[in-house]
Amino acid sequence: MIYLDQASSSFPKPASVAQAMADAVNTYGANPGRSGHQLSRQASFIIEETRSKLKDMFQAPSVERIIFTSNATAALNQAIAGLSWEKGDHVITTVLEHNSVRRPLERLRTEIGINVDYIGVDGNWTEEISKKITKQTKLVVVTHGSNVTGQILPIQEIGQLVSEYDALFCVDGSQTAGILPISMKEMRIDMLAVPGHKALLGPQGVGVLLVGTKVELKPLYVGGTGSQSEKPEQPCLWPIGWESGTMNTPGIAGLLKGILEVQSKGITDIHEHEKQLTSKLIQGLKKIDAITIYGPEEGEDRLGVVSFQLDSIDSHEIAIILDNHYQIAVRAGLHCSPMIHQTYQTTTGGLVRVSVGIYNTENEIIKFLEAMKEIKEGLLG
Amino acid sequence: MIYLDQASSSFPKPASVAQAMADAVNTYGANPGRSGHQLSRQASFIIEETRSKLKDMFQAPSVERIIFTSNATAALNQAIAGLSWEKGDHVITTVLEHNSVRRPLERLRTEIGINVDYIGVDGNWTEEISKKITKQTKLVVVTHGSNVTGQILPIQEIGQLVSEYDALFCVDGSQTAGILPISMKEMRIDMLAVPGHKALLGPQGVGVLLVGTKVELKPLYVGGTGSQSEKPEQPCLWPIGWESGTMNTPGIAGLLKGILEVQSKGITDIHEHEKQLTSKLIQGLKKIDAITIYGPEEGEDRLGVVSFQLDSIDSHEIAIILDNHYQIAVRAGLHCSPMIHQTYQTTTGGLVRVSVGIYNTENEIIKFLEAMKEIKEGLLG
Repeated sequence: MIYLDQASSSFPKPASVAQAMADAVNTYGANPGRSGHQLSRQASFIIEETRSKLKDMFQAPSVERIIFTSNATAALNQAIAGLSWEKGDHVITTVLEHNSVRRPLERLRTEIGINVDYIGVDGNWTEEISKKITKQTKLVVVTHGSNVTGQILPIQEIGQLVSEYDALFCVDGSQTAGILPISMKEMRIDMLAVPGHKALLGPQGVGVLLVGTKVELKPLYVGGTGSQSEKPEQPCLWPIGWESGTMNTPGIAGLLKGILEVQSKGITDIHEHEKQLTSKLIQGLKKIDAITIYGPEEGEDRLGVVSFQLDSIDSHEIAIILDNHYQIAVRAGLHCSPMIHQTYQTTTGGLVRVSVGIYNTENEIIKFLEAMKEIKEGLLG
Repeated sequence: MIYLDQASSSFPKPASVAQAMADAVNTYGANPGRSGHQLSRQASFIIEETRSKLKDMFQAPSVERIIFTSNATAALNQAIAGLSWEKGDHVITTVLEHNSVRRPLERLRTEIGINVDYIGVDGNWTEEISKKITKQTKLVVVTHGSNVTGQILPIQEIGQLVSEYDALFCVDGSQTAGILPISMKEMRIDMLAVPGHKALLGPQGVGVLLVGTKVELKPLYVGGTGSQSEKPEQPCLWPIGWESGTMNTPGIAGLLKGILEVQSKGITDIHEHEKQLTSKLIQGLKKIDAITIYGPEEGEDRLGVVSFQLDSIDSHEIAIILDNHYQIAVRAGLHCSPMIHQTYQTTTGGLVRVSVGIYNTENEIIKFLEAMKEIKEGLLG
């Protein structure tokens, strides 16, 4: 199996990830922070160690304001719906956003009457945002990199712009955490949502929301926090007030090992490796007639995510052939990011998305390109 | 280590649980339902298999209306806050509830102005509820069994009563799922929340909400669902509309193995085993002067959860001695269920809670009782 669906979930994981999860379950499977005994303390230790690594990796302002969620979607929902909204509040976002940003915003638009501006892909991102941002803008929320086109947004520039207004700046790091350097401090990010199971190489089931000190956030879930239990209202203590219920200790233990692997490989080298594979991929795809690639050109700084169309053939048909005949895993369709497909008019057939990761090799790209040549010849002659 | 903190999280787990999680991470760590390829289908298969087992175990009306959450707290928040509330709506619950029920209700009371009646521990539960329930009651939410006293509530009777009104019936199965039989059909339960990591023997990180066909529930999180991606609004399709974002496939794979172990041991035998240990425990504790046990008597049908006070000594002090000197893990404090401590006037020092599970032995109970005798003599003479 050649796995080129890394933007959905990275695979394989470092062997240490599953090992750490099994160890968590088998040797200290207690409830962290709830009981004071040894097993419980061991679980707490792993969780706090992971929080500390995340703080360092993303230059977060405080270890307490890092909360574990079940995935990046939960983190983005908490970030967006957790703010205090009023009718007429203004938000700026982009057409590149995943539904995990778009749908929470659209729900606030329908239910509360906020105004949302979606910035398009033409022109300069920062310039376009600067045209829309006002003193009434409450939130600017953008993806750091597109899960469809691989395009990277100028987060530092946008962060600088947003910091000159009263708005909060929220970044969806789903496609970039573990691949590009992200500094909440330097990029002036107020909220950063990241998944554990993509380029951070952790298991599915863990996401993270890193929250800046000026953000007032209402927890979406309330319940048992293992502290201040006598109060009828949720305790306003970070992080426990935003982490009600039993935590995913095995998943967090796995994520810690993923992060250690990313640190050991080095983010610069990881991005460089993915760029090389992506260049090879784009060069090869361009040699195949009838293939249209969407997104940045090969030379540009971009992520290892390449989406394309083969003539007018439905993307799912190509993905099925790749899977059945070539044992190559890619993803077809809209990738939960519908707005960019409206821009490209690719909503009907979707796009075939090829995404590479730290463990993919040049040889796998060559085999994929050979498969695509055969498929093209088989389907179109 | 003698682990008597089973009501927090069961330990140890069957060896198959960690193995299944490691297999999920190492051999098919893809994104279920998002991509069509082999690994993704394998992940989907495990998830749907688990849903199907849960449907059978709890006699749920539909496999589609079973949603995976990150824990029982998330399931209860979804169940309670996901209903459509208006000022003046009426809810009945009990003083036995965990903060995962109390705090979502108290938030609705503060923010929307619902009315909440808390039924006390004196008298007959069903009778007390029958005195409060009216045509205006929207929800009756009760725990199936107390995580402090081990008391079991007459769910079938209450369900019958509630079904004669327009109210919905929600049950918190945190302490009973995997120990007592629960049938949504026979007990007329509209929503059942269960944790994966307690008596179902799965890992931490997975909870489940099983939803009846007459319940209209607004998803708390919205986002990518891998289907109907073009829509700006969340698709109203079960289960995907309530499971946005990447699912915890390793955790669910582990839960499946936990459920299989429960089925293989048999719920009746599990409950019987725990009752025998609990009788032994209560008999032994009663022989120690200065110990006051709270909750049902030894002969009554009850859960394997026993809470007590030793004179006026803070419960944390006893838990620390048990942990440090005897390698025995119990839990001290309020157990996130503060209201029952108000009833018992045990809020200040809390209670020592001993909770047994499927793998605990009579010998462990004997050792615990010996330790308690020594502690009593050491502290009180």
